[in-house]
Amino acid sequence: MISIDRLEHIQPYAPKREKKYILLWCTSGDLLLRVDDKKLRLSKSELLTITSGQYFGILEQNKAMGFMLDFTLDFFCKTDHDIELVFQNGLFCHFDENELIAIPSPEQISGILEMIFKEFFVQPYQYLISIHSYVSLLLVEINRARIVNGYEIWKPDALFLRFLELVRNDFGEFVSLKELAQKLGTTTVRLNELSKSYTGKTALTVIFGLQISEAKRLMYYENLLMKEVAQRIGFEDQYYFSKFFKKQTGYSPTAYLKTIAS
Amino acid sequence: MISIDRLEHIQPYAPKREKKYILLWCTSGDLLLRVDDKKLRLSKSELLTITSGQYFGILEQNKAMGFMLDFTLDFFCKTDHDIELVFQNGLFCHFDENELIAIPSPEQISGILEMIFKEFFVQPYQYLISIHSYVSLLLVEINRARIVNGYEIWKPDALFLRFLELVRNDFGEFVSLKELAQKLGTTTVRLNELSKSYTGKTALTVIFGLQISEAKRLMYYENLLMKEVAQRIGFEDQYYFSKFFKKQTGYSPTAYLKTIAS
Repeated sequence: MISIDRLEHIQPYAPKREKKYILLWCTSGDLLLRVDDKKLRLSKSELLTITSGQYFGILEQNKAMGFMLDFTLDFFCKTDHDIELVFQNGLFCHFDENELIAIPSPEQISGILEMIFKEFFVQPYQYLISIHSYVSLLLVEINRARIVNGYEIWKPDALFLRFLELVRNDFGEFVSLKELAQKLGTTTVRLNELSKSYTGKTALTVIFGLQISEAKRLMYYENLLMKEVAQRIGFEDQYYFSKFFKKQTGYSPTAYLKTIAS
Repeated sequence: MISIDRLEHIQPYAPKREKKYILLWCTSGDLLLRVDDKKLRLSKSELLTITSGQYFGILEQNKAMGFMLDFTLDFFCKTDHDIELVFQNGLFCHFDENELIAIPSPEQISGILEMIFKEFFVQPYQYLISIHSYVSLLLVEINRARIVNGYEIWKPDALFLRFLELVRNDFGEFVSLKELAQKLGTTTVRLNELSKSYTGKTALTVIFGLQISEAKRLMYYENLLMKEVAQRIGFEDQYYFSKFFKKQTGYSPTAYLKTIAS
């Protein structure tokens, strides 16, 4: 599924867990946004992407104009090519932070989003095919903007991206790296090679990072006992979870909770 | 592979067997074209598609402006979706005649082709992805034009289209319908069902039609003995070929040769 709306039609709303990939594009005014435990202000000629699984809400709407596009992974990703395009340059693959992307040629982005908006509402013959093509053009255009802005190109292959998706979609039950590799039809050696080459970290360290992000989301947004947080990211024992959290972040879960409370 | 050029840069050339799918778009002037054994005049706001395997040449170039785009099937067709898009509405799937398509909104077609032209020559980051998207948009736009012109939508599924491709790519050696079905991982019953539903004819009748088109091309363009023509479309025996040709077309190979000579 895919949908699109003009920012000027969108009212502030409380953060909620997103099940879609979201792209926000601002042509004037600004929006104050909440993404996981961070606040971001999206202003003119800036673009922001939100990955499925993140918490997202709009805190303030200051006469912002532009577009909000959202789509599910299965709408866009028909081939490995599509998967790579969505996640390249970290576009929808946030290990840590969502970045505001400054767009040097805003008329291109606006032009493509206007076409998607028109196709979505008029629904002419084969509009889903044309929208898919326009979304591709949009993602290419964003990648080009990032290159102009001096970003290095990060172009992991589809297997590594499927590995990340698998981890993100199933925190609840602890699965060993070996089992993950088997599910993906590959080996732990290959996963470690890919992980080292694309992130500089082992596959297990990448998994740990994703678990920490998810643990923070649960602590921030859900009224859970620490034991339940631990379970939801695959730890049977609350004590081990606390040690793990402190080792990865440098502070204990309780210290994190105090930071966000203040 | 894909390439594009402006019509104004293209000089007349003698017909040759094309190994690519060609799309011609005229914005002013006209071209006198040869496609297989037919002559066609492409004029302002008209579009023509040529299927790989056809003979194509430009007989006269009368100040024609516009674009000529060509691509291989493997450049465009990454998914069944792409295959269906290329062949839908008979766009690149000529059983018999190539039709001039009148385009009611020429600025759309010109706009997309200008973008392809620009991407092709500038080759910015991910230009092959963006060109693929623009070609999809172009094919959707042509399908919409055909609907405006009152054509019925012809939307066979990918399996039937792969069947046609298989027949067209291998005339030389006689392969039974059963063997074709096996190669495609299906059954003769299923191929006949699809064929009846998309063409009103049995699968074998469709094969016969494709063989006749190919036989005519060989007689028209290549200096072959009738025995060689027969062999090239899968007949061991020249006598059977002549009977087959007469049964399918109503006239003998010799009569056909006389028509084209006059």
